[in-house]
Amino acid sequence: MIVNMHDRFSFQIEKKLPGALGRAGILHTPHGTIETPAFVTVGTKGTVKAMTPEQVADTGAQVVLANTYHLYLEPGEKRVRDMGGLGTMMGWHGPTMTDSGGFQVFSLGFAYGTSVSKVAKASDTTEEGALPEHERERQGKLASIDEEGVTFKSYKDGSEHRFTPERSMEIQHDIGADMTFAFDECTSPTAGYAYQKEAMERTHRWAERSLARFKELQMGRGERPPQALFGVVQGGRFEDLRKESARVIGTMDVDGYGIGGSFVKEDMDTAVGWVNALLPEGKPRHLLGIGEPLDLFIGAEQGADLFDCVGPTRIARTGMVYTHDGRINLWNARFVNDLGPLEEGCGCYTCTRYTRAYVAHLFRSHEMLAATLASIHNVYFLVNLMKRIRVSILEGTFAHMKEDFFARYKK
Amino acid sequence: MIVNMHDRFSFQIEKKLPGALGRAGILHTPHGTIETPAFVTVGTKGTVKAMTPEQVADTGAQVVLANTYHLYLEPGEKRVRDMGGLGTMMGWHGPTMTDSGGFQVFSLGFAYGTSVSKVAKASDTTEEGALPEHERERQGKLASIDEEGVTFKSYKDGSEHRFTPERSMEIQHDIGADMTFAFDECTSPTAGYAYQKEAMERTHRWAERSLARFKELQMGRGERPPQALFGVVQGGRFEDLRKESARVIGTMDVDGYGIGGSFVKEDMDTAVGWVNALLPEGKPRHLLGIGEPLDLFIGAEQGADLFDCVGPTRIARTGMVYTHDGRINLWNARFVNDLGPLEEGCGCYTCTRYTRAYVAHLFRSHEMLAATLASIHNVYFLVNLMKRIRVSILEGTFAHMKEDFFARYKK
Repeated sequence: MIVNMHDRFSFQIEKKLPGALGRAGILHTPHGTIETPAFVTVGTKGTVKAMTPEQVADTGAQVVLANTYHLYLEPGEKRVRDMGGLGTMMGWHGPTMTDSGGFQVFSLGFAYGTSVSKVAKASDTTEEGALPEHERERQGKLASIDEEGVTFKSYKDGSEHRFTPERSMEIQHDIGADMTFAFDECTSPTAGYAYQKEAMERTHRWAERSLARFKELQMGRGERPPQALFGVVQGGRFEDLRKESARVIGTMDVDGYGIGGSFVKEDMDTAVGWVNALLPEGKPRHLLGIGEPLDLFIGAEQGADLFDCVGPTRIARTGMVYTHDGRINLWNARFVNDLGPLEEGCGCYTCTRYTRAYVAHLFRSHEMLAATLASIHNVYFLVNLMKRIRVSILEGTFAHMKEDFFARYKK
Repeated sequence: MIVNMHDRFSFQIEKKLPGALGRAGILHTPHGTIETPAFVTVGTKGTVKAMTPEQVADTGAQVVLANTYHLYLEPGEKRVRDMGGLGTMMGWHGPTMTDSGGFQVFSLGFAYGTSVSKVAKASDTTEEGALPEHERERQGKLASIDEEGVTFKSYKDGSEHRFTPERSMEIQHDIGADMTFAFDECTSPTAGYAYQKEAMERTHRWAERSLARFKELQMGRGERPPQALFGVVQGGRFEDLRKESARVIGTMDVDGYGIGGSFVKEDMDTAVGWVNALLPEGKPRHLLGIGEPLDLFIGAEQGADLFDCVGPTRIARTGMVYTHDGRINLWNARFVNDLGPLEEGCGCYTCTRYTRAYVAHLFRSHEMLAATLASIHNVYFLVNLMKRIRVSILEGTFAHMKEDFFARYKK
């Protein structure tokens, strides 16, 4: 089955997991194909942290996702456009994506605020519903939401900015990634029902507005390659909301779907399944911000095709690397004399050339190469775990492989 | 003329500058040849900062120098040995060098001390001579020198350590670089005559002891490749001392020479010439710690064959890169919209793939890749400037090339 999403985008499902939602497919984009399920490497500010694009490609990574929020603030979307767009700017010649900016507007507004400077979001609400508007105002929060969009303060310098669905589309149009996302409100997984419902319904209205502006902008791309738009399903951990959101977004003329929201771990299995059982089958589905090893199995089994996560590079910079037995911390004293690779049998650049003892030395010496070598390993680990999951779907050995992995991997 | 330094080391002078001391040559080592004059890339702690060894090799760099002092403190020379020695440990398969540890013992002792914790060295002396020993003790300095060696405190944790010529040789033996240096006392260029003479004479005695221990250790290398030992000429800015030092070190059975001491700029031309006019012609000469663009011309003209400097990677991390017109600072606002490469016509990895605007963005975003891209460019710049100097010596165009470079390059 091949679905032509639109001009120069198509998605082909090669094989489905028997009795489950999971599938292996191929996503065609103007900058090449992505074999799915695939781990999407995150290049927040137009670079995968501590890695060159050649090092990224060398891990087997197929696609890079950058953050609209960050690129908007620095260097600015017009400069990215003038540098030839995201891929050309950063020297990555494969497929690219940008998120909508929504997640950072809300989470960085929240995370970087002082005690009284927080976004008015789920955590300010009761189980009964949203904090009253006047109460939100009073708190002097970093971001404030209205029907039209979100006003927020830059985490860099406190300057005030405003995103609307239309603005997010315009920024993503200039950044020029192959695949873009509709502007959404990303709520906390602990948000109460009433607020989740309110935010979800707003996200649906924003998705319609995103799509309308996206279509206008695509007419004016000239010689720049066309882009695809993914609509984002929200709804938190509530089954009826997730299903409603999947039904609503699923009817829209978008090219693919994002499944948004910070899941609490226990909800991964259920929430992703609820949504994917209802979304149209033929378009790709991106599980936003998810990418721990065990989550890749669960998400793929529940029908997600794309996953992204800053985890592998973020934990790498702290000395933490993945192995099939779980994470290990290279700052641990036992590694300073360990002449083995980060993981026995690993085929990555780092493991085929350096010892744990050397990488541990680099961390202890505060050398940048430490972050590079650990990041390469972690990205390779997830990218290739995902590839093996894909092969296991194609070969009918998924359940067996999952069982083996879960038995060995210690969280 | 080929001088066989010893087993698996030889130096061949291909061409000399007419009427000057400069020459082009080939230095053979157990890990490959070095075409001289050559810029030696510095990998202080067993890594060229912010670069992989492949990125280093890709600049055309032929040889890496690591610091004995740093590797002794972290991870320790025994661990370097157990990891297969410097080159194997760090994944650099070409020739390697280690310095003697002397420079760091003195300069870090001085640089990292509190106001009362400094090494008893030239700056504590008058023009008339050294500070009395009891006065040095009283000051609670980080390093104290006696005839046998130097006791110093680690810049990392304040723990006390001791280097002697024998100990320096033993550490360098374990680290296992192809070329090593005799333990020397590195004085300040502003030191008074009497202290310079005292330190120089001690350095000569330490060179004899270094050589004796080096020879013993070479008998026990087993299957590890043999090493070469360079004796270090000191004497500060005093002509008679420099000449005396060149004569004394020049008679020793070493494989090459280091020219040590922090030169003040005006002395580069004269001091290097005094020394190289007296040193035996057939062995390689390493101008220690020197490597600014103009200095490479002066040093090469005055007969130096090898140069090392942390400059290119150190300034790169601050956003400063070399061009033929002088250094530019990528933090400058004019670069944020500049779609040209760091330098027009440069063939380095960075310049052939990225714009000034993108690298400026990476610096402003505090991305590690910024340091990597700027370091690659700067190392490439110096390595290839040195290669062009070499070609100009071979082709008889050195004077012309030097004139052109000096006319354009703004310090």
